[in-house]
Amino acid sequence: MSGIITHGEKHLVLVSGRAHPELAKAIAKELGTELVDTELRTFANGEIYARYGESVRGADVFVIQSHGDPINEWLMEQIIMVDALKRASAKRITVVAPCYPYARQDKKGRGREPISARLVADLFKAAGADRIMSVDLHASQIQGFFDGPVDHLFAMPVLLKHFRENLHADNLTIVSPDMGRVRVADHWSDQLNAPLAIIHKRRDPKVANQVTVHDIVGTVEGRTCLIVDDLIDTGGTIVKAAEALKKHGAEKVVVGATHAVFSHPAAERLNCDFIDEVVVTDTLLIPEEKRFEKLTVLPIAPLLARAIHEVFEDGSVTSMFDGAA
Amino acid sequence: MSGIITHGEKHLVLVSGRAHPELAKAIAKELGTELVDTELRTFANGEIYARYGESVRGADVFVIQSHGDPINEWLMEQIIMVDALKRASAKRITVVAPCYPYARQDKKGRGREPISARLVADLFKAAGADRIMSVDLHASQIQGFFDGPVDHLFAMPVLLKHFRENLHADNLTIVSPDMGRVRVADHWSDQLNAPLAIIHKRRDPKVANQVTVHDIVGTVEGRTCLIVDDLIDTGGTIVKAAEALKKHGAEKVVVGATHAVFSHPAAERLNCDFIDEVVVTDTLLIPEEKRFEKLTVLPIAPLLARAIHEVFEDGSVTSMFDGAA
Amino acid sequence: MSGIITHGEKHLVLVSGRAHPELAKAIAKELGTELVDTELRTFANGEIYARYGESVRGADVFVIQSHGDPINEWLMEQIIMVDALKRASAKRITVVAPCYPYARQDKKGRGREPISARLVADLFKAAGADRIMSVDLHASQIQGFFDGPVDHLFAMPVLLKHFRENLHADNLTIVSPDMGRVRVADHWSDQLNAPLAIIHKRRDPKVANQVTVHDIVGTVEGRTCLIVDDLIDTGGTIVKAAEALKKHGAEKVVVGATHAVFSHPAAERLNCDFIDEVVVTDTLLIPEEKRFEKLTVLPIAPLLARAIHEVFEDGSVTSMFDGAA
Amino acid sequence: MSGIITHGEKHLVLVSGRAHPELAKAIAKELGTELVDTELRTFANGEIYARYGESVRGADVFVIQSHGDPINEWLMEQIIMVDALKRASAKRITVVAPCYPYARQDKKGRGREPISARLVADLFKAAGADRIMSVDLHASQIQGFFDGPVDHLFAMPVLLKHFRENLHADNLTIVSPDMGRVRVADHWSDQLNAPLAIIHKRRDPKVANQVTVHDIVGTVEGRTCLIVDDLIDTGGTIVKAAEALKKHGAEKVVVGATHAVFSHPAAERLNCDFIDEVVVTDTLLIPEEKRFEKLTVLPIAPLLARAIHEVFEDGSVTSMFDGAA
Amino acid sequence: MSGIITHGEKHLVLVSGRAHPELAKAIAKELGTELVDTELRTFANGEIYARYGESVRGADVFVIQSHGDPINEWLMEQIIMVDALKRASAKRITVVAPCYPYARQDKKGRGREPISARLVADLFKAAGADRIMSVDLHASQIQGFFDGPVDHLFAMPVLLKHFRENLHADNLTIVSPDMGRVRVADHWSDQLNAPLAIIHKRRDPKVANQVTVHDIVGTVEGRTCLIVDDLIDTGGTIVKAAEALKKHGAEKVVVGATHAVFSHPAAERLNCDFIDEVVVTDTLLIPEEKRFEKLTVLPIAPLLARAIHEVFEDGSVTSMFDGAA
Amino acid sequence: MSGIITHGEKHLVLVSGRAHPELAKAIAKELGTELVDTELRTFANGEIYARYGESVRGADVFVIQSHGDPINEWLMEQIIMVDALKRASAKRITVVAPCYPYARQDKKGRGREPISARLVADLFKAAGADRIMSVDLHASQIQGFFDGPVDHLFAMPVLLKHFRENLHADNLTIVSPDMGRVRVADHWSDQLNAPLAIIHKRRDPKVANQVTVHDIVGTVEGRTCLIVDDLIDTGGTIVKAAEALKKHGAEKVVVGATHAVFSHPAAERLNCDFIDEVVVTDTLLIPEEKRFEKLTVLPIAPLLARAIHEVFEDGSVTSMFDGAA
Repeated sequence: MSGIITHGEKHLVLVSGRAHPELAKAIAKELGTELVDTELRTFANGEIYARYGESVRGADVFVIQSHGDPINEWLMEQIIMVDALKRASAKRITVVAPCYPYARQDKKGRGREPISARLVADLFKAAGADRIMSVDLHASQIQGFFDGPVDHLFAMPVLLKHFRENLHADNLTIVSPDMGRVRVADHWSDQLNAPLAIIHKRRDPKVANQVTVHDIVGTVEGRTCLIVDDLIDTGGTIVKAAEALKKHGAEKVVVGATHAVFSHPAAERLNCDFIDEVVVTDTLLIPEEKRFEKLTVLPIAPLLARAIHEVFEDGSVTSMFDGAA
Repeated sequence: MSGIITHGEKHLVLVSGRAHPELAKAIAKELGTELVDTELRTFANGEIYARYGESVRGADVFVIQSHGDPINEWLMEQIIMVDALKRASAKRITVVAPCYPYARQDKKGRGREPISARLVADLFKAAGADRIMSVDLHASQIQGFFDGPVDHLFAMPVLLKHFRENLHADNLTIVSPDMGRVRVADHWSDQLNAPLAIIHKRRDPKVANQVTVHDIVGTVEGRTCLIVDDLIDTGGTIVKAAEALKKHGAEKVVVGATHAVFSHPAAERLNCDFIDEVVVTDTLLIPEEKRFEKLTVLPIAPLLARAIHEVFEDGSVTSMFDGAA
Repeated sequence: MSGIITHGEKHLVLVSGRAHPELAKAIAKELGTELVDTELRTFANGEIYARYGESVRGADVFVIQSHGDPINEWLMEQIIMVDALKRASAKRITVVAPCYPYARQDKKGRGREPISARLVADLFKAAGADRIMSVDLHASQIQGFFDGPVDHLFAMPVLLKHFRENLHADNLTIVSPDMGRVRVADHWSDQLNAPLAIIHKRRDPKVANQVTVHDIVGTVEGRTCLIVDDLIDTGGTIVKAAEALKKHGAEKVVVGATHAVFSHPAAERLNCDFIDEVVVTDTLLIPEEKRFEKLTVLPIAPLLARAIHEVFEDGSVTSMFDGAA
Repeated sequence: MSGIITHGEKHLVLVSGRAHPELAKAIAKELGTELVDTELRTFANGEIYARYGESVRGADVFVIQSHGDPINEWLMEQIIMVDALKRASAKRITVVAPCYPYARQDKKGRGREPISARLVADLFKAAGADRIMSVDLHASQIQGFFDGPVDHLFAMPVLLKHFRENLHADNLTIVSPDMGRVRVADHWSDQLNAPLAIIHKRRDPKVANQVTVHDIVGTVEGRTCLIVDDLIDTGGTIVKAAEALKKHGAEKVVVGATHAVFSHPAAERLNCDFIDEVVVTDTLLIPEEKRFEKLTVLPIAPLLARAIHEVFEDGSVTSMFDGAA
Repeated sequence: MSGIITHGEKHLVLVSGRAHPELAKAIAKELGTELVDTELRTFANGEIYARYGESVRGADVFVIQSHGDPINEWLMEQIIMVDALKRASAKRITVVAPCYPYARQDKKGRGREPISARLVADLFKAAGADRIMSVDLHASQIQGFFDGPVDHLFAMPVLLKHFRENLHADNLTIVSPDMGRVRVADHWSDQLNAPLAIIHKRRDPKVANQVTVHDIVGTVEGRTCLIVDDLIDTGGTIVKAAEALKKHGAEKVVVGATHAVFSHPAAERLNCDFIDEVVVTDTLLIPEEKRFEKLTVLPIAPLLARAIHEVFEDGSVTSMFDGAA
Repeated sequence: MSGIITHGEKHLVLVSGRAHPELAKAIAKELGTELVDTELRTFANGEIYARYGESVRGADVFVIQSHGDPINEWLMEQIIMVDALKRASAKRITVVAPCYPYARQDKKGRGREPISARLVADLFKAAGADRIMSVDLHASQIQGFFDGPVDHLFAMPVLLKHFRENLHADNLTIVSPDMGRVRVADHWSDQLNAPLAIIHKRRDPKVANQVTVHDIVGTVEGRTCLIVDDLIDTGGTIVKAAEALKKHGAEKVVVGATHAVFSHPAAERLNCDFIDEVVVTDTLLIPEEKRFEKLTVLPIAPLLARAIHEVFEDGSVTSMFDGAA
């Protein structure tokens, strides 16, 4: 072949939005590198501006953003960052969204609703994303919303390690806070070889309207109850579940969740007598005012860093979870 | 504007694959019309050929196919039929797939798997489909796999009507055959105002390997138990559940499901002493040899016909399920 | 053709986001109809939810949203609304964005920037928009960013009518506030048959750094000066221009612009002695606290309503501007 | 449904490029309408400009262009016209290309070649074409190059009618001018119930290099030979074939072809003693200087007009050729 | 550039469907490697499941499948395998389809037919295929059906080598079995410098209806006749041609074809007295019961392996056929 | 990973159309390589044929074409060349269009016009282009017309270098030839630290119709005036501007422009007494008959070669213009 020939190289580049820069920095540190300097500004009229401080041509770029409140700001910022990467000739663009935005709007529950979780996948695609990496998708089917590879990571090993070190397995019961999360709880029950209990909300037949009773299916008296969920939003369901558990004689109630959405008034609610510990990861930024004594925050950066490394080096992300998940 | 002006018209056209022509004919009859004559052949080498007997130019066409075994044949036939419609200038093409093919492969459970349910949506799109209509998708998120409108119908009103006329509500318990279908059972429990029971499979700690115990969460003794599921494939789970229910004192065990996949040896299994009645719809063809005395097959054509009529007339499909679902 | 035949109909449907509902209502009123009832909510974690109160199947839908601050919220809301329409089988979806979001990021001024105005067009497309309607795009080339029809309206007739009734043409000078808007001012100069003046910012050679002098090219002494621009953001440029004009002897300074972005501290700045009147349209919501005595707000609804009517009836939008633009 | 409802209408609009306006006018006349006035100009630097003189919003538009030399000009002109229609909100755009451009580059004969016939289909699609209409594609497979409906018309009925009226069937032999057109000749042989002859070019084993002998397979002595082909380009093959036929005793040689490409020096060549008549259609413009006494040009406008009418009225184009092709 | 830099590598990976694993293994052996272990299963209801046994991230993957009967099964299996590769982050996916499925449905012969050969290309594309490799496409235009590179290989060198070693060139005549394959036969005639004969089917004018006479154009008496075709399906045409040749005095009749579709009753038919040898390649699996004494099967794996090697190493596939094809 | 592993390499390949081969050769020479041999032909009927002389598999290919008159020929040639590259498995295809075709049709100035500059971007995309490289786009927004990276180069450093060496800065005035180019002139004014003047065309109120007066805003008497523009087409505006400048006492008039379109009668017009020098680059071919004594042509190849080098080596194109633009 005529022309010029050189040896190929691969460049890993990390960039971060403004939602949760500490997480991105921690990932970079784990990987032994630094974030590429990025100018990010919000103009007076609310429009966001992005610009990379150095060339990203030909690079394998991971765009890290956490989708906490204000979620639309952070989503648009990341989409704009992807567009800038595409136009700057990045070779491959991976959207790292540890807590996938709009994950709960994953189907049409009623007519004339959007399916915003699919829409988000389409918006990333339209902007130029080649791949998505996320942790504990609210529904695994969201993987199928993106037309390309999705690296679906599980925080379970991180949480499991903590609980194995801090809870006595022989007195443990796994609790699903409602009917919708039974499957997840079942999976934990398997992993920790602990029995399962389910909180079942139902209308009290004796009282009219709206009033619900929280039945407990399974044995909880005198046990350490571990309520598991993928995310904690306003905390209402969790606290009601904890209250019911304690009223039924649970000795201790511990809560484990991946995503600490902590919408108001989650912090106030969780910091109650019914709950002894809340363990989450830092996929989302948890500001000081939303932290409380009983809260334990586990770092998710090592997991994300390892997955990014495997993706860049054409290794296996799946094998990271062998045995555990 | 220069040129020629005429009044607009809308044409509804129904065509059917060879998987389950009775269903398509029943739909046409409900709508007061007939299927457009279609030549469908399989050549000696296994390739399928399709040709419409009359013009479908400008028509609003509904392509009806049932995806039973051999499922890949019927899927390819429908895709080929859609291609022929696109090239024949149909105005709008709606794929009617009462039992969505590959619905259970809706996520990557492990690494390096396909997401075939999304793939199927992409194949229909590639062939030229504008819309999809289906009944009781295995996961509602499949709606989000297609880039366009999906009419998601529910067979529940059909089944509910039957059970309301044939079962005494006051002695009824709704049973989820495993942890994965708890939510559906919960919905039935709401609709029929009946308590809920769950079959929980777990490893027997006293016996090594593979052996599972079927625990029952909830009260079933002396009750009429209605096991609900979206589909019955080989029937293994259902029969094990029924057996457990009867062993725990259930008076009667009735099974209700939308899709009668009935893979071998479903018919043999279901026709057992633990089960008193099996009620399904005919979204799939149930040949004579798979029918048995305790089986009741409810016609799904009226539901599909009404939905097709609403779609064609720009009415509301959602309102068909107000109150019921 | 076999099948069912009915007469075709066309349905015009208007829906509105929450940014500026008064504008949408005014448009509906002009058209003699009402907005379709739409549920729009922001969840505790910041996610937006949309749902239409009645069927929009087969309809020609116009989704009206104003893109003021918080601009990313309103943009995402409109995109989500488009997704819901697509999945609800709307026949045609027109995004009405009177003040196109991110219009000023219409090119890469430097390396590694996004082209957000193109990105916005792609996002609307990805969500399912068929057409876009907008008023006075910052650059006309934005029409080319969307892969489909763009109805580009001009507020000039609205503003011209006001100025013709309120200003004496014989003493009028049109002023471009900087080098970038000369072409627009030239167009006004033609329409009003008035001379042109240009404000030219340059570094003062006598003073070091950053200090700029505002030269005026053209005659302004004793004249009524009409500064024209497509939008007023923080108002800095406009006020500096007005100050220079008054210092050079202008008798009166009037400002005319289409989009009142009015980012802080625009209202305070504009309400100064150098400016006698500010005339804008209500393409964006102008809250009470940003209004001031010298401000005149002209309604844009009649223009948008007429354009929507022409689009729906297959008339001509272009002919609306014959003579004037 | 809220909103405004009106009755639907369909508008047929015809526009034409500058390559062969007589053909477009003849089509319009057959349909009883007129071409929409269109401004078409070539600027000094060679760029083409197009603009429609009246609104085409919502119309079913047919863009007629003939692809003779300079073929790239006419192709680009038509593509630009399609773009303008798309941006002007035409409802459906049909490219009418009676002689499909680049039809002979329909495969990669050697490595590193383009497949320009597919490329042309992609360019029309990229510009916004919904459908293509063409006559006697060089290879029928070109229909599959376009991702949408292609109306493939056959000039055979037009030519057949002429020959049935002008040639004696009992003395007729159909001749394929080379191996590549045998199938077409076979089809004519069927239609006219006349025997077949084939011209077979081969290297003369007695003479070195390049020299070819034109063998004739079949009986031609004393017969009227009708050479059939889809197009005549420079005429070389046809004239060589005619010469061989006459040398082998053919009484009369008549040539029938659909597309009169007539590249230089076709007219000179065809106007020779070996050929008694050449019959073509006017899918391409045949200027005066390329016409000669023995040439008969049959009008193709009636065929195209009838097909356009069928497409517009949702009739059947296929049935136009029942019996004949 | 900030970030991490490593040297680039290229990985060639071969995977195979279940249709013809021997062929895939033979290709791997030629390349000196092994197939990546792949789990392929058909569930009880007919759905196919695929999963790769090790990581294919970043690899240049060739998915080998033979499309014999049941052709829709094998086609869907390959499409599903492509989807799994796409989602597993393969860098480039090449579909290896030695005998392209649905190749004969490459155009609309009549109205309202599909163009399934184009559809197949679209399905591969939709699933995520970047390239296609095939042998002796029924029509070369099929290359243009795929929007990307198609490596079109020719089995001719393989077959030619066999015939040059086994047939005497000086007594050889190449025979086209019908009008549609004349061009291929002409090409063989060139390569082997042998005269050409054509079988011409026509209606017998003396007998009514359906009865056909097989005329022979060219000299066959006393000669070794080599009938060439791209594929043998049920063998009807070939056997009729052979019978006619022997009746006209052919000394020996040999058949050469690339694809042994061998639909029933091909094996019985071909094993007749009119035919002395049938030579095919193993692009398709030929089970024992379809093999017969006169059949010679040439291995196609060396050709495919060499082409795969050239593609992987950015060499030239075209140059493999210089001189021969 | 099973399979075969080799080291990655990158190949740079340059190919050129026939519009301006000298430019392509000059670029190749700057890069120290040669153009890949390419067969380019125009058939008798006007169709263009392209074929590469050697393999381009896996290469990073730059397709160089200059879009002078006949512009549609050269545009189609380049599009066809891109298609051939795509089908020949080039890894990345960059369209090098130094003078972007149809750049001035970048918006709809009136209704029912095309946006041909966007269309051209879409045609390149449809053919398979991954990237575009161009010099001094008529409007920077054209970057946003392509869905991918656009390397926008500036000829300013080339022109600036010439003028800095040939003009005395202290007597220099930068002139905008009309209102539409004021911004460009302003930028030059900044770079050369020279005052600005503007030519303002307006109707003469004393004379009826069409007659225009060329006012000059700014001081030109006794000064060297440098008229700057992105392109010179027929030269009318420039010559009128020069005449006005000289009449107002300019000592010397020099013209600087990037693209020498030079449509007839540009050469005659520019070679007049009002103009002392015309400086352009050779982005377009300037044939001998369009050259004149006062014309200086600066080579653009070094700039393009450096940009191609940066793109191939994943360097930074932006940094080429630091300081200068």
